[in-house]
Amino acid sequence: MGVTVIQHVLKRLRDIGVAHVFGVPGDYAFPVNDAICADPDLDWIGCSNELNAAYAAEGYARLRGVGALCTTYGVGELSALNGVAGAYAEHLPVFHLVGAPNIAIQESRALMHHTLGTGDYDLFRRMSEPVVCAHAVMTPENVAYETERLIAEALYHLRPVYMAFPADLATRPVAGESRPIQPPQSEAEALAEATEAIVSALAAAERTCVLPGLLVARGGCQPAMRALLDATGLPFATMFMDKSVLDETHPAYVGMYDGALMQPEVRDFVESADVILAVGALMTDFNTGAFTARLDPNKTIWVGRHRVRVGAKTFYNVEMADLLAALTARLPHRDWPRLDARSLGDIEGAGDAPIDATALFPRLAGFLREGDIVVAETGTVSMGLGFARLPAGANFYNQTLWGSIGWATPAALGAALAAPERRTVLITGDGSHQMTVQEIGAFARYGAKPIVLVINNKGYLIERLLCKDPASVYNDIAPWRYSALPAAFGCDDWLVARATNCAELDRALAAADGANSGAYIEIVTPGDAASPLAIQFHNALTALYR
Amino acid sequence: MGVTVIQHVLKRLRDIGVAHVFGVPGDYAFPVNDAICADPDLDWIGCSNELNAAYAAEGYARLRGVGALCTTYGVGELSALNGVAGAYAEHLPVFHLVGAPNIAIQESRALMHHTLGTGDYDLFRRMSEPVVCAHAVMTPENVAYETERLIAEALYHLRPVYMAFPADLATRPVAGESRPIQPPQSEAEALAEATEAIVSALAAAERTCVLPGLLVARGGCQPAMRALLDATGLPFATMFMDKSVLDETHPAYVGMYDGALMQPEVRDFVESADVILAVGALMTDFNTGAFTARLDPNKTIWVGRHRVRVGAKTFYNVEMADLLAALTARLPHRDWPRLDARSLGDIEGAGDAPIDATALFPRLAGFLREGDIVVAETGTVSMGLGFARLPAGANFYNQTLWGSIGWATPAALGAALAAPERRTVLITGDGSHQMTVQEIGAFARYGAKPIVLVINNKGYLIERLLCKDPASVYNDIAPWRYSALPAAFGCDDWLVARATNCAELDRALAAADGANSGAYIEIVTPGDAASPLAIQFHNALTALYR
Repeated sequence: MGVTVIQHVLKRLRDIGVAHVFGVPGDYAFPVNDAICADPDLDWIGCSNELNAAYAAEGYARLRGVGALCTTYGVGELSALNGVAGAYAEHLPVFHLVGAPNIAIQESRALMHHTLGTGDYDLFRRMSEPVVCAHAVMTPENVAYETERLIAEALYHLRPVYMAFPADLATRPVAGESRPIQPPQSEAEALAEATEAIVSALAAAERTCVLPGLLVARGGCQPAMRALLDATGLPFATMFMDKSVLDETHPAYVGMYDGALMQPEVRDFVESADVILAVGALMTDFNTGAFTARLDPNKTIWVGRHRVRVGAKTFYNVEMADLLAALTARLPHRDWPRLDARSLGDIEGAGDAPIDATALFPRLAGFLREGDIVVAETGTVSMGLGFARLPAGANFYNQTLWGSIGWATPAALGAALAAPERRTVLITGDGSHQMTVQEIGAFARYGAKPIVLVINNKGYLIERLLCKDPASVYNDIAPWRYSALPAAFGCDDWLVARATNCAELDRALAAADGANSGAYIEIVTPGDAASPLAIQFHNALTALYR
Repeated sequence: MGVTVIQHVLKRLRDIGVAHVFGVPGDYAFPVNDAICADPDLDWIGCSNELNAAYAAEGYARLRGVGALCTTYGVGELSALNGVAGAYAEHLPVFHLVGAPNIAIQESRALMHHTLGTGDYDLFRRMSEPVVCAHAVMTPENVAYETERLIAEALYHLRPVYMAFPADLATRPVAGESRPIQPPQSEAEALAEATEAIVSALAAAERTCVLPGLLVARGGCQPAMRALLDATGLPFATMFMDKSVLDETHPAYVGMYDGALMQPEVRDFVESADVILAVGALMTDFNTGAFTARLDPNKTIWVGRHRVRVGAKTFYNVEMADLLAALTARLPHRDWPRLDARSLGDIEGAGDAPIDATALFPRLAGFLREGDIVVAETGTVSMGLGFARLPAGANFYNQTLWGSIGWATPAALGAALAAPERRTVLITGDGSHQMTVQEIGAFARYGAKPIVLVINNKGYLIERLLCKDPASVYNDIAPWRYSALPAAFGCDDWLVARATNCAELDRALAAADGANSGAYIEIVTPGDAASPLAIQFHNALTALYR
């Protein structure tokens, strides 16, 4: 027998960079599960539940550019839906492979398990539609061209896609063939015009700032972006969602721009520029300091992945990488005004002093090493570390737009497996960690050695800052013994510590830094140890929620 | 100020039996969270994540007839979706309260956190539509009548409903008023005709069997059903999904009917009856022994919640409770042929013998007491215990149609809080338990004292039986130390034990039975210790999947 439907899809996913599939097996998905495990170039990564698997695939895609998730029909795919939606919001091409009942069952409308009992077997695909950019039920007849279409759509939009595999069709041989769809090409004239418009705008400017956004990273344009900066001397700032899209040790880096909420000198630098070159950046609430960013539309040039807007004019079919290369060739190097990027303040507190915000975040910043992968959970934790200047080659990942708490723990698993040669540092709050905590076991199971830092501030601290009464009981969480968890989850040789004051934290971080194993450190802070940005959001409630 | 939108909804939910709301807070939901906590007659039950909260609300609704779940916009509601879908499949009216952004934000289409960044603020409501029977965005103008409509729909269909609360509208005063919608009344003539048709069919029958289904329990018709059996002497069997809908110590109980897979004497009894009276039963795959049940359409009378079918004739607008009462009044008591219901076999194994299926399930059956709430996870665990004859007043709950593994642990939390005066026994497999394990902490946090029995068979055993190669790695799970978990999750005074042989299991069960605390017992079985029904499903693969 020739290549089967599922084998064909898996081969194409391998071609574009998928080497691990995160998932939970299930009876309707067995043919898909079997094919993944039989493929010598793919690793099946069994997660504790489907939402965790989706988060892990999303984290993996941040490093590898693509990710894959496999769930069973109904119960499995719906459990993963929030994670797939997150991949949509965060622009990550995650391929969601869903095992479905045999066609004969579907046509009989039988009352099978994992259905609503209504006989509608197309329902769950329809429920996934709004959170993917494309979807298909894979059959022998369509698999060749649908696979190419779905890959092309996922990579063009940088969004997830949905592929359902009826169990009986998944193992049928492929009928027909199809060639890979070529990525879009820039229209030469539009590219030249857009380049010229930007060159002339910059020629007339005395002060400028680039805002490289996360779509630069997602679209693989970091080398082109870096080349542009190196060739031209253009300074750049980044917004929260875009943090670490370029190296923060780069001499042209001026710091984090977060509207009126943080670092007024960066705000002044950016907003007083004659030309602002925003490249693949999104103006979301958390990117704009609760919409306090004020970018003059007449001075701001927007470079999208496939379009450029300069003033009132939009240039279509201009690919980001092509534009960046053209600008690199055309723009002169200039001694543009810059600003020295700040980091967090000095480390404060020592001995048995409590680990308040000024003790915590500078210590965490000091802990980071070159090349670290930092996965920072939504909330006051990421808001605190977001303003640390990262070491060379380090990446900072946060789910800034979707902001689904619980994401960070499994996303760190995905990241760790995507780049096993790098150190993965997971930093999470206690409330978020509780949501998806069981995935800690998967690190050990698959040989990953993360540094896990759990901030125990006894509840949902960011919510205490945003709600009416910080003491509301709904912001409390179950009192756990976090440091007992790694052993319970089978992380046998991990370094485990609990730090309740500055000295203990210093010791624990030093030990983790030297450990040749996973490390899990519970950091007990006062209940109000909020990062400055979190407090600024508290002060900007009206701006944020209106 | 008058009663607010959210206060009005909460008051009406209290009226129909909601006393606890399960959820996870979130910024867009704060007005809803605040109102729940401010209501002296409602308890906020904070869960570790939204799916767990949904399962808990679903388990609560099994005992109380209604349940309530509260999540935030986007990330929260989508995480809960699989649990809401389960409530739909399993016929449980769960009210899903979702906090949403202010109307001004929605109308501005701003790129806010917890959105996909597309500006579509109606998207998530549409994604919930397929898994609820009704939905509304609650406003001051519509809240009076929409609340009544949603309650009426939820109770008529026994399905979940969705209520979104834009944050700024939730605290506005209610405009207008509305009276509760009365439940539907039987049409007198149709009721009389249906009654007559059934009476005459039974008069001509020599052998009969009633199949009371789960809709009898869901619709609150158990007293009417029991009265009918007591008055007439009619024998009854139950199918898997319907287990314990009536007391299994009832003298008219003949046993579990599962098509050709189990207990052939019950199958013969049911299928050879001259008249089969199926009341609120669903012919799903797991209810029919993989569709091996053979109920002669000419002999089977179907009593639904609002309709009755006798032969080719359907009687509309006949309410189940009214019909059962009419039959009780009309039918004579007869000495109908019966069958003695079996339980599991004798307890086998002793001392250091491994805990195989014949050692395990009879022991579990023997452990159950009068009035127990048994929450049994999908898989070989529930399949094993499903054929035990339960003590008086005990209830057996399983998610037989939806079959979402992981359900049982949080569902048991919901059940335990719904009926704190009863003992809740959670029986789960290890793979399922891992999915939602963190909710163990909530039992202790809210003072519940369940008996938790975790069957450690090193993977997804039911899947090993159903897939091609039982040793497939995707059926393996992370190796945990289960007995370390209760302490880690803050269950401080619980009895914790690990049983690896029959003697240890006997000791642990005896200790749990005497404990005045929660108990958590890891039961280590051989990897192939499958219950007989699970093995039968393995043998019936073709019948099940076609």
